[in-house]
Amino acid sequence: MSELLVDTNPLPAGISGRLRDQLTFLIEVDRLKTVLRQSPLAAAPRRENDAEHSWHLAMAVVVLAEHADEPVDVGRTVQLVLVHDLVEIYAGDTPLYDLAARESQQEREEAAAARLFALLPADQSQRMRELWDEFEARRTPEARFAKAMDRLLPVLHNWMARGGTWLAFDASADHVREHTSSINEASATLGTARDHVIAEAQRQGWTAG
Amino acid sequence: MSELLVDTNPLPAGISGRLRDQLTFLIEVDRLKTVLRQSPLAAAPRRENDAEHSWHLAMAVVVLAEHADEPVDVGRTVQLVLVHDLVEIYAGDTPLYDLAARESQQEREEAAAARLFALLPADQSQRMRELWDEFEARRTPEARFAKAMDRLLPVLHNWMARGGTWLAFDASADHVREHTSSINEASATLGTARDHVIAEAQRQGWTAG
Repeated sequence: MSELLVDTNPLPAGISGRLRDQLTFLIEVDRLKTVLRQSPLAAAPRRENDAEHSWHLAMAVVVLAEHADEPVDVGRTVQLVLVHDLVEIYAGDTPLYDLAARESQQEREEAAAARLFALLPADQSQRMRELWDEFEARRTPEARFAKAMDRLLPVLHNWMARGGTWLAFDASADHVREHTSSINEASATLGTARDHVIAEAQRQGWTAG
Repeated sequence: MSELLVDTNPLPAGISGRLRDQLTFLIEVDRLKTVLRQSPLAAAPRRENDAEHSWHLAMAVVVLAEHADEPVDVGRTVQLVLVHDLVEIYAGDTPLYDLAARESQQEREEAAAARLFALLPADQSQRMRELWDEFEARRTPEARFAKAMDRLLPVLHNWMARGGTWLAFDASADHVREHTSSINEASATLGTARDHVIAEAQRQGWTAG
């Protein structure tokens, strides 16, 4: 995959410089819509893609930010979730419960970030990189809440699917609790809701024990 | 479609009050991923859905906001595009070049907004309604820029598709210019880029004359 999407039909020559780079990037990130996650949709019998997921996370930030234990800047938290999965355009999705794939994840995503963000003008490339780094490092309240949303929505999707990836990846209730602990770390209220969902899912047999 | 998605598998009883309403809404809006637009993706041979489109618009706001003729608050503009299509969950997508469907659009979307936003706690319901109204009224710089992005991305998608909905809906270059004038109204720079794309598309035969 050495070609950019826009290379198949280059923009008119009248569009140049900074704007040409920005439009090239915006066309290239269309690929995020083709990166499939393991999560099943609640609204249709198919898997979710990263662009849909990123939009849903942004909505979750807007609706649930009041439950963050530490106050968060909603606008900045939304930007974190909008860009947090961009590297998967080249690195692919790494399922939460696929431990083998998770070993090589960092290296693959580093290479993808370097390649993708370089399409933008230098200042914006750096800004995207900073947003991605902030999300990954989880050192700010915004990054911690963004990560909590990234763990909460799959819990809701698996609940609606009566098992979903919990059963597909043979994850026990304890394993699910361990991998979604960032919810409880960012919000006691949402953490309690998570606890209720996992406990009831376990009772129903929607986790692997 | 009288049933909510969550009614097929109600959340545990321990989740109550305000949070239960918010999670009910977040599960229900999963439906946005099933509302198909006419626009073809650049990255795959299929049509785009509203959730993907809303994410792409948010990215376009983040990357292109510097070109707005009037300064815009990026965080608020992003929120406008995240919610602008939610009413289509119940009202369906109304293609830009489908004039018959556009006649009943306002009434269908009003009913959808009343139904969907009512799922949220009252203060958030009103906030969602205000964001949607702001987007539709285009009286703020943020709303005008959000609308410009909503017109610009289909231009890029149709360019990449060598015609796309321009040919599907028999739209002439003049017709396309008329229906995307909000780009030029919000940004002279992006308007010029739009002009280049439409002029070259017309030369290539990717518009209907």
